[in-house]
Amino acid sequence: MWYEDKIMRTLRCRTIQKPGVLGRLLTVIGDLGGLTGEIKTILMGSSHVVRDIVIFADDADHMTRLIQAVREFPEGELLEIRDEVMEMHQGGKIAIRSRYEINTVSDLRKVYTPGVAEVSLKIQKNPALARRFTSIRHMVAIVTDGSAVLGLGDIGPLAAMPVMEGKASLMETLCGLSGVPILLNTKDVTAIVDTVAAIAPTFSAIQLEDISAPRCFEIERRLQERVSIPVMHDDQHGTAVVVTAALMNASRLTGISLDQCRIGQVGLGAAGLAISKMLIHLTGRPVLGTDLVPDAVARLVEAGGQASSLKDIMAGCDVVIATTGAPGLIKPEMIRKGQIILALSNPNPEIEPDKAREAGASFAADGKLVNNVLGFPGIFRGAVDADVPRITREMLLAASRAIAEAAPAGEIVPNPLDRQVHLRVARAVARVALDQGLNRDDITGYFD
Amino acid sequence: MWYEDKIMRTLRCRTIQKPGVLGRLLTVIGDLGGLTGEIKTILMGSSHVVRDIVIFADDADHMTRLIQAVREFPEGELLEIRDEVMEMHQGGKIAIRSRYEINTVSDLRKVYTPGVAEVSLKIQKNPALARRFTSIRHMVAIVTDGSAVLGLGDIGPLAAMPVMEGKASLMETLCGLSGVPILLNTKDVTAIVDTVAAIAPTFSAIQLEDISAPRCFEIERRLQERVSIPVMHDDQHGTAVVVTAALMNASRLTGISLDQCRIGQVGLGAAGLAISKMLIHLTGRPVLGTDLVPDAVARLVEAGGQASSLKDIMAGCDVVIATTGAPGLIKPEMIRKGQIILALSNPNPEIEPDKAREAGASFAADGKLVNNVLGFPGIFRGAVDADVPRITREMLLAASRAIAEAAPAGEIVPNPLDRQVHLRVARAVARVALDQGLNRDDITGYFD
Repeated sequence: MWYEDKIMRTLRCRTIQKPGVLGRLLTVIGDLGGLTGEIKTILMGSSHVVRDIVIFADDADHMTRLIQAVREFPEGELLEIRDEVMEMHQGGKIAIRSRYEINTVSDLRKVYTPGVAEVSLKIQKNPALARRFTSIRHMVAIVTDGSAVLGLGDIGPLAAMPVMEGKASLMETLCGLSGVPILLNTKDVTAIVDTVAAIAPTFSAIQLEDISAPRCFEIERRLQERVSIPVMHDDQHGTAVVVTAALMNASRLTGISLDQCRIGQVGLGAAGLAISKMLIHLTGRPVLGTDLVPDAVARLVEAGGQASSLKDIMAGCDVVIATTGAPGLIKPEMIRKGQIILALSNPNPEIEPDKAREAGASFAADGKLVNNVLGFPGIFRGAVDADVPRITREMLLAASRAIAEAAPAGEIVPNPLDRQVHLRVARAVARVALDQGLNRDDITGYFD
Repeated sequence: MWYEDKIMRTLRCRTIQKPGVLGRLLTVIGDLGGLTGEIKTILMGSSHVVRDIVIFADDADHMTRLIQAVREFPEGELLEIRDEVMEMHQGGKIAIRSRYEINTVSDLRKVYTPGVAEVSLKIQKNPALARRFTSIRHMVAIVTDGSAVLGLGDIGPLAAMPVMEGKASLMETLCGLSGVPILLNTKDVTAIVDTVAAIAPTFSAIQLEDISAPRCFEIERRLQERVSIPVMHDDQHGTAVVVTAALMNASRLTGISLDQCRIGQVGLGAAGLAISKMLIHLTGRPVLGTDLVPDAVARLVEAGGQASSLKDIMAGCDVVIATTGAPGLIKPEMIRKGQIILALSNPNPEIEPDKAREAGASFAADGKLVNNVLGFPGIFRGAVDADVPRITREMLLAASRAIAEAAPAGEIVPNPLDRQVHLRVARAVARVALDQGLNRDDITGYFD
């Protein structure tokens, strides 16, 4: 189990100031299978030391046992247990902020009435000015009905809000965009399309998020037909962009050419189908695919893929990408020598990467590697800056290439917290917009 | 014409460093009817001085003439003309901000995945926790279809955006709430109600803004029936709250008792009708009203008012409130001695306050005085903090009283930029929520 799937707590411990005590405390934790994270020294006294120790457990019961053991540690005492994740979410993670202080009548007059009337009238005469003189230009709706959230499923819009806020936080942090969560209390396709189309003037782009398949396909298509700003379902295209980037680098590392190899896709849900479509577009050749749902396979065939089976894919493909949500589906004996295996289901993959490599895979990775955060901020930033009406396959592929190229030597993806990566993605997307003549804004000076 | 209705520019002027030059320059501006605002000295040289001079003109033509005159001023030169209002609106006035910096994998893990999953699951089990662990608690939708914006009328949603952003800026500045502009591209009542109801889970309250009458009445009523968070049309109730506060103080200043006097309302649009309803509720006695639209008068009668005429109201009422949009409607000879006259149409009132006073009014004011900014931030803050399902007439009246009481001696309204005013309004609203048993959150410690 990867530490990212564990739960964490911060324990404030007061221990005796004597060599070896911290080691013994951490040994107590380790003996029970607990992992240790950051350790901060809060107070260094002559007789005692107070430290904040972050620990990771497999689940709530395990955490209880770890805490009990720390409590019983003879050379110190447990002062406090903090759940910093819950604390950080108190009151939410985002806020609308005024970009100006308003302290005087003069400020009020400029920001609000009567100054604002002149701005409004200018926009009325020339609606294109709204992108220059309002926040619409940096506003991106992050829309969900909460029907397919993370690995948690249909937990509803309220429970999805912390995830939407996370996306918004990252958009602002990484690209300066204002992600506005929009929670829907309907799951009806037509109602969702009508609702989002009705509020679309507020935004420069629409990010669909955590909406279950197959509804997500129709919602994205119908909504994009209705509005003239980009609509992108991140679980499809964002994932496909990052997986494709990872695959580009895996192919370089292993010497398997994507243009000539056979690619198999196990699991054709929202992400799986989008990955297949992107690879068909990239390679110009069909991807073999399988899914328990016949309609899902039909969608792949319609997109230029080829129906297959798990057995045939494992036996015949050079690259296998699995997005099934079925942990352990791929047995070591099914691995063909030299295969690239991307077992992407979260939190538990179809096969653990080390087991796949032991069984002969030339490269193997799981879903931890494919972080959507690498894709959506830069894709939206580039699309919004160029003011395109939609995001094309070519823009998405350019984003993949930019991500692949930003990976350090030996790694298949770059660090998602590296701001330069997102800038490169944004520019790659905007460059394609310019090449395709889809940009409605002058971005000729954008690439300096 | 009040200077707030004028347009402003900042002129950067370089003049000869000699006593009297600035005076002569300002005289040139003044001779042409231009007003002067702030003057900043940018550079004080031995031979020249550079200053930024803010000037006000009646309209664009007038501004052109003023600028031309400054250009021709013999003892200096015009270096630059800046439109600071437009500059401030570049890129909009608000942004979604992450409340946390995200610089390390550990930050990412807490704010986003996997930490966020624990928060989502807690909310799924207990949806009430969404108010504690998400931003929903401070999110207020500011919804408009752009059909009745400021004094500008139906300028559409895009042109309304600068105004919505102004409201959002003020909400954050004055009360820490996150106002989220939502622009609608439909004017259909049912579509608006359905759309806002569909996105309502995102917010703790809905502020309807600049939606034309009579649609605004039905939209507010139907939407409030559909959602269990407060829905308030600011142009109705926000205005009514502030006018009532002003009237409370005007009655104290003049000695006219609101409980016994006759009140007349000229103009029964969204604001006018809401003011009448509030005063009927406050005094327990009918308000006399008139409007060119028979349906508007019927709505007043239904609310307990009494149909009348402009002539009878002017001749018989102790208090006359006009919200007609018809400048100069009230002639000096119509004023009755001792009357309170609130001529509230913007930018030009039904009668200028000084003319009304000359004609015998004991008190007169125009719409500049009644700034909605005094009301909505605190009303929403109090309602959201108490987590009420709706805002009641009693809460609105409590807000009026709090505003009236916060006015300095001799003034009829307080300074809207005084943060204490909004805190007092919020507490007054929350106190009534507690008294009426409508609060769904424990706010017993709120009044310390």
